[in-house]
Amino acid sequence: MKIAIYQLNPTIGDLANNAEKINQAAQWAISKNARLLVTPELSLCGYPPRDLLLNPSFIQSLSIELQKLAKKLPDKLAVLVGTVEANTDSNLRGEKPLFNTVAWLEDGQIKQIFYKRLLPTYDVFDEARYFEPGKQTNYFEIQPNSSSNPLKIGVTICEDLWNDDQFWGQKKYECNPLEDLIKLEADLIVNLSASPYSVGKQNLRENMIKYSSKRYQIPIIYTNQVGGNDDLIFDGNSFAVNPQNEVVLRLKSFEENIDLIDFDPKTKHFVLSTVNNKPQTAEEEIWLALVLGLKDYAQKCGFSQALLGLSGGIDSSLVAAIATEALGKENILGLLMPSPFSSEHSITDAEDLVKNLGINSYKLPIADLMKSYDTILEPLFAGTKFGVAEENIQSRIRGNLLMAIANKFGYLLLSTGNKSEMAVGYCTLYGDMNGGLAVISDVPKTRVFSICHWLNRKTEVIPHNVLIKPPSAELKPDQTDQDSLPPYEVLDEILDRLIHQHQSVSQISEAGFDLAVINKILKLVIRAEFKRKQAPPGLKVTDRAFGTGWRMPIASRWKFD
Amino acid sequence: MKIAIYQLNPTIGDLANNAEKINQAAQWAISKNARLLVTPELSLCGYPPRDLLLNPSFIQSLSIELQKLAKKLPDKLAVLVGTVEANTDSNLRGEKPLFNTVAWLEDGQIKQIFYKRLLPTYDVFDEARYFEPGKQTNYFEIQPNSSSNPLKIGVTICEDLWNDDQFWGQKKYECNPLEDLIKLEADLIVNLSASPYSVGKQNLRENMIKYSSKRYQIPIIYTNQVGGNDDLIFDGNSFAVNPQNEVVLRLKSFEENIDLIDFDPKTKHFVLSTVNNKPQTAEEEIWLALVLGLKDYAQKCGFSQALLGLSGGIDSSLVAAIATEALGKENILGLLMPSPFSSEHSITDAEDLVKNLGINSYKLPIADLMKSYDTILEPLFAGTKFGVAEENIQSRIRGNLLMAIANKFGYLLLSTGNKSEMAVGYCTLYGDMNGGLAVISDVPKTRVFSICHWLNRKTEVIPHNVLIKPPSAELKPDQTDQDSLPPYEVLDEILDRLIHQHQSVSQISEAGFDLAVINKILKLVIRAEFKRKQAPPGLKVTDRAFGTGWRMPIASRWKFD
Repeated sequence: MKIAIYQLNPTIGDLANNAEKINQAAQWAISKNARLLVTPELSLCGYPPRDLLLNPSFIQSLSIELQKLAKKLPDKLAVLVGTVEANTDSNLRGEKPLFNTVAWLEDGQIKQIFYKRLLPTYDVFDEARYFEPGKQTNYFEIQPNSSSNPLKIGVTICEDLWNDDQFWGQKKYECNPLEDLIKLEADLIVNLSASPYSVGKQNLRENMIKYSSKRYQIPIIYTNQVGGNDDLIFDGNSFAVNPQNEVVLRLKSFEENIDLIDFDPKTKHFVLSTVNNKPQTAEEEIWLALVLGLKDYAQKCGFSQALLGLSGGIDSSLVAAIATEALGKENILGLLMPSPFSSEHSITDAEDLVKNLGINSYKLPIADLMKSYDTILEPLFAGTKFGVAEENIQSRIRGNLLMAIANKFGYLLLSTGNKSEMAVGYCTLYGDMNGGLAVISDVPKTRVFSICHWLNRKTEVIPHNVLIKPPSAELKPDQTDQDSLPPYEVLDEILDRLIHQHQSVSQISEAGFDLAVINKILKLVIRAEFKRKQAPPGLKVTDRAFGTGWRMPIASRWKFD
Repeated sequence: MKIAIYQLNPTIGDLANNAEKINQAAQWAISKNARLLVTPELSLCGYPPRDLLLNPSFIQSLSIELQKLAKKLPDKLAVLVGTVEANTDSNLRGEKPLFNTVAWLEDGQIKQIFYKRLLPTYDVFDEARYFEPGKQTNYFEIQPNSSSNPLKIGVTICEDLWNDDQFWGQKKYECNPLEDLIKLEADLIVNLSASPYSVGKQNLRENMIKYSSKRYQIPIIYTNQVGGNDDLIFDGNSFAVNPQNEVVLRLKSFEENIDLIDFDPKTKHFVLSTVNNKPQTAEEEIWLALVLGLKDYAQKCGFSQALLGLSGGIDSSLVAAIATEALGKENILGLLMPSPFSSEHSITDAEDLVKNLGINSYKLPIADLMKSYDTILEPLFAGTKFGVAEENIQSRIRGNLLMAIANKFGYLLLSTGNKSEMAVGYCTLYGDMNGGLAVISDVPKTRVFSICHWLNRKTEVIPHNVLIKPPSAELKPDQTDQDSLPPYEVLDEILDRLIHQHQSVSQISEAGFDLAVINKILKLVIRAEFKRKQAPPGLKVTDRAFGTGWRMPIASRWKFD
């Protein structure tokens, strides 16, 4: 029995187009003699729809669109579509008003609805805000062909498969939908997912699913969404495993893709199919993720061209390279805005980058504007020392010029700050933080370097000098980042322990870091909360980004000791 | 039996100081011969602690601080303190790792822990992200005095009382903790709350609690947190009711307060105590809320002085008045930044406001800076028409000047946009949206007017001319808001239907609004999502603010039809 797996790149809320894409996939599937087509979680509306779910008309439209789709699909093909259903009479039982569901469409009808049971409510996930957990075990039976017995197919939705207590060494939810399906003697499990990307996530998914498949001796198909939706990137990488620890199908990483797997109703095993390679390194993986994230954000927001400031530093160089790959060199404008504090190499390095990438560029020196601000502020600032206020003015002049050009010609402005800067607040709110999308705000500085080195593995993309010079904001004479910060290797490890590992000051200190340095960094991190609050959406590539999954109070006094 | 009720204004995460405030309250309570002291929900750490809860050291510190507090408190006083407890072995059961709890402290000990059962997970509330719901019914017994029988006191935490199916006409949660306590024959219910303010919320609370008190024939004490924490304002207004629909105690609105209520162990009723007045009008209520919200945000973030731009318009005038009330006129600096498009009355109106309020002011005309930008951008902009790009440059010049002064002298910059503007995007990102706090971003324009009229009820605070002239951004010659928007009365009602009532386009149209107007507004609202994403925290005064409770996708295509 042939099963088609379609990792769809939906646009949130674009129900008619998402439905048409599913229909196209179904036409392809039937042409290949498939019996079943599996799509991702919430494939009809895209994941995550967030507070669109609070509009009753959104839920009604999903229902209407699902019925229309059912009628349009080819006969004799079972299609699993992710959608949302109202929880009828939830008011009488004191339940949430919606279910996160999968609809089995076949022969023009909605044959059955399945309900997601485990609702992630942590990090970027807010499912308990909207949904009631399903209580029943979800499966259906289909006849592979006229001669064979029906197969019992267990249906799980994303998190439903993430509760193998042996794999995790703990229970994450009370019930285990997979175990329930095993008790009912399912022949095969399908999973409809929208699992956001983070570094190494696919290895984790495959290890987990292989573990469960082997433990319960059951073949599993894992279908993931692909594409960027605001801060979240979905990597696709849909796959199927046999209970012998075998990945027998893997769809492409970071692109829309459809493929087939053959399930033998007699042996109850998959036949080996296409196994696409995963990215080879973390650097390649993050690169592909960011390219997709930027491309989709631009396209889904209606931008074809992007703009960014080029300082000659490594962050803006990397973002320019990502943007070029995502939107095409002819669609990228790099703006050089040197000040009297800019070193000669800043300009030549930026110009070398422009040459390497083949993008458009323009130079607008800001000295005159700086003078105009100095003049107007002179009566107020007289007698004070040059300091952060003056440094920020420069950054905000650049931010204003970038936005003026973006507004005038319809560019998407990209901000170029990295995660280390965002953590300690080495960035200017309303200045270099300006932008519709923060492309590398979840990439620590040390990783920015390693990605650039990887990018240069064959030919020079990032100019060599950009990689070797000491990082500097160049907002005052002879400034470097290390004047006031520890080396980035040290900073990034302390930040990782604070942010990702939830370690306390004393734990980090016990790990061998200088207490004064930790406390200084911690103070910076806490103080910068108000800046992060106003940052553009940043593409998430780690398991804890400063985005929708980071919910910190600003006016607080906790010292993390 | 005397019961003290302390509506505390905690600082999030400042455990030692919050504990000391509770201790001071206990010393007062015992001096008044109280037998019991009730404090708000999570009084030890402040509500909401958000992702601080993810740090194990935060949970440990709460536990240590609670034990220290128990030892410090006076003898023979039962004290109920809101805190967080680890859910031991949650890993084995697949539960969330924490409980939202109340500790009963007495005689140097932690006598008992009570667990919150109903966990709000909607709007600004994320409790299912952190907490496991408690399963048992929470009560304890105390002896009012040596001669009387022990009293059974039912303990509920905030949402635990918000599930009266008869009052709401629906069940919001499966279980009803109050009903369970009635079955156990509780004599009295105490509730520890942190219920954020919105217009009219106190009437709702009192009606609901009175309803339940009468329905179940049980006296209830409702203790609420007070103070501003980022976008949330807590209004205090703690109260007690007898089953005869009687409010027998009401603490002050919008300020820290402690008071006593006497419970007669024989009649099982409260004796009438101090019933403070509630604010008389919605305008007064919102005014008091915003003053408190601004004051606390400034103080808890360490600012004593605030700065804002004065355009001579009604929004900045109102914010200046609020800031003056919150921080004192000597601590407010208003900056006038006229451009060649500013009308004469803009300047004189702003100057009149400065005089009325007695605040400091300074004038920085921006014509020269506008020219500098024009000059630098001339080669790029040549041949294009004056438009949004040029309008925004002006706003961003002002934003840059304000931030420069704020950075230089340590002012908190206040942004002055109202909710109607934020909804349709009539505000400039990195321009007039700049600020640490958006003071009136949840106040619709029509309400801004009514608050200003209320403010002027005795003497002129807001200059008369500000109230009568047509609103304008003055970013081009002879511009008014109504050039491109419907009258604010119409706009605000359409927005209310869209945002608060979750109505669809066709529903609003059926209510008699012009379809073209609705669609135009809707388009503006959807398009402005990227701006709201980068807005400063805005003080919440309605039941649906553009803040932590507003979670909309940016790159989406839903048309709300």
